[in-house]
Amino acid sequence: MAKAGDGSTVQSKLMSLLVVGSVAYDGLETPHGKVDRILGGAATYIALAASYFTQPRIVAVVGEDFDAQDERLLLERKIDLEGLERVPGKCFFWQGVYSADMNSRTTLRTDLNVFAGFDPKVPENYKDSSFVLLGNIQPALQASVRAQVHAPQFVGGDTMNFWINDFREDLLKTIAQWDLLMINDSESVELSGETNLRKAAECIHALGPKWVVIKRGEYGAVLFEKGKGHFAAPGYLLDQVTDPTGAGDCFAGGFFGCLAESQDRAGSAALSSETLRRAVIYGSVMGSFCCEQFGPRRFETLTRDEIDARYQEFVDFTRFA
Amino acid sequence: MAKAGDGSTVQSKLMSLLVVGSVAYDGLETPHGKVDRILGGAATYIALAASYFTQPRIVAVVGEDFDAQDERLLLERKIDLEGLERVPGKCFFWQGVYSADMNSRTTLRTDLNVFAGFDPKVPENYKDSSFVLLGNIQPALQASVRAQVHAPQFVGGDTMNFWINDFREDLLKTIAQWDLLMINDSESVELSGETNLRKAAECIHALGPKWVVIKRGEYGAVLFEKGKGHFAAPGYLLDQVTDPTGAGDCFAGGFFGCLAESQDRAGSAALSSETLRRAVIYGSVMGSFCCEQFGPRRFETLTRDEIDARYQEFVDFTRFA
Repeated sequence: MAKAGDGSTVQSKLMSLLVVGSVAYDGLETPHGKVDRILGGAATYIALAASYFTQPRIVAVVGEDFDAQDERLLLERKIDLEGLERVPGKCFFWQGVYSADMNSRTTLRTDLNVFAGFDPKVPENYKDSSFVLLGNIQPALQASVRAQVHAPQFVGGDTMNFWINDFREDLLKTIAQWDLLMINDSESVELSGETNLRKAAECIHALGPKWVVIKRGEYGAVLFEKGKGHFAAPGYLLDQVTDPTGAGDCFAGGFFGCLAESQDRAGSAALSSETLRRAVIYGSVMGSFCCEQFGPRRFETLTRDEIDARYQEFVDFTRFA
Repeated sequence: MAKAGDGSTVQSKLMSLLVVGSVAYDGLETPHGKVDRILGGAATYIALAASYFTQPRIVAVVGEDFDAQDERLLLERKIDLEGLERVPGKCFFWQGVYSADMNSRTTLRTDLNVFAGFDPKVPENYKDSSFVLLGNIQPALQASVRAQVHAPQFVGGDTMNFWINDFREDLLKTIAQWDLLMINDSESVELSGETNLRKAAECIHALGPKWVVIKRGEYGAVLFEKGKGHFAAPGYLLDQVTDPTGAGDCFAGGFFGCLAESQDRAGSAALSSETLRRAVIYGSVMGSFCCEQFGPRRFETLTRDEIDARYQEFVDFTRFA
């Protein structure tokens, strides 16, 4: 918590979380059903998940077909949409179908639409953000957003195989500035050239990030801290995975939301290993809720009490000593 | 701990662990090397892993080619070999090669040899065993071993896809008598018809076992207790997996060894959920050590102190609350 010039405490702005990524529409088919068009996009999922912990600020672009009811969902969750640019054209659209075990998916259609010309502009009001979460977009754009924020306390982001393979140099320059890289296990192999998880994490530490989170889907996630070992969290066992779309982004949103909330409580002290471990669990909790319904529908009813109850379940089903 | 007729305490015999399975030779090739002939077999790995916690008793069969130095390794670990039958012919031999990521393996050769006629006979001295671990052999033989033990306190075992698919009725009759079934994730799907882990475990509970352990390879293991929820343990992250052969059996050996040891300490009280959870971790520890060297070589030097240190690592890398 910091003091403003007049001596009053200024909290919520200083510890706020800036999120950049896509706000999009998805067409989804899983073994449990099919929807032709539903709100999606990395920034959407991240912000929704983070909104239970802090007040996220979105930097993204949408077209004229962005629905009023979808905007309402984001506003009801108190997500700041000042940085949501509206331009002529249509929203990014992605359509995919999941395999029977939902461990893989096939893209049927990708229409970049307004996302093709996305040049993220961080509003003046966002430039004091303490936490910056750079969703999976072109590395140069991630770097541009990072550069527009004055003095972030903690910067992290996501990436994917496309950027790793085809924009490698850009990506390496970009993540060199990050405190944390969040990546799934197959991407960690592509980025590092190491199939062993410990060695992959060491390699990524050497590229810059002090913290590395390797997401392993239903098997959980592992957090590595440079020179200090790791923390392994098993996945939450759902009775049914209805739709895994957005689960990784919700993990990121819960993770960064938890960091921002902890900082609001703890003041300006550096983030501790304990806080980052707790963030992995809250990330896992948010990812698990996301899978319970199609698209982001679970967030229409989800409460903080349900989130904290599931966190407690993690405490219970991992306890042994 | 029980009282003998003369009032003295009789401990080690009552809480001892009977193990049935193969004692064999393997030819192994992994990305880290190749050995033409090395001691193997489920009973071998189980007994070696369990020997750090209790004094296992083996029921198995070997041929005339069983090496004196391999027998010495088992005897040095104080494994009781009275039930190791020696018959004319050669030991069971299996040869296989692992894929680059070691998540799958191809069998090149299986010579059942003396194992083809294996009819397990439990020595008189073993019939008071408290713990019975039925390694992966024909279900009818597992049932026969179980029937020869007078009043075991806790019976568990392993199986595989071959018995699930081709000997299903025998298997169902056999496991109906077990307290615990230990199985890997793909086998749990084949046995239960359920791809969801929670539902698979519920289905297996309904077949008899109060406890179900589902092994997930490098991702860890989940223990389900009927009507009481579950315990999830992440896998240990090795710097290098040299040879995964026997890891599942070492998990089972560490698990049952820990149960027997706990019972030696606690007396005749029923096994608690806490003890079973601890057993999952010790099982994971033993499985991880097994992978560090080819075949069972790691057990030539492994000490209990190293085991307890790795258990403590599990405490450290899973702690968050």
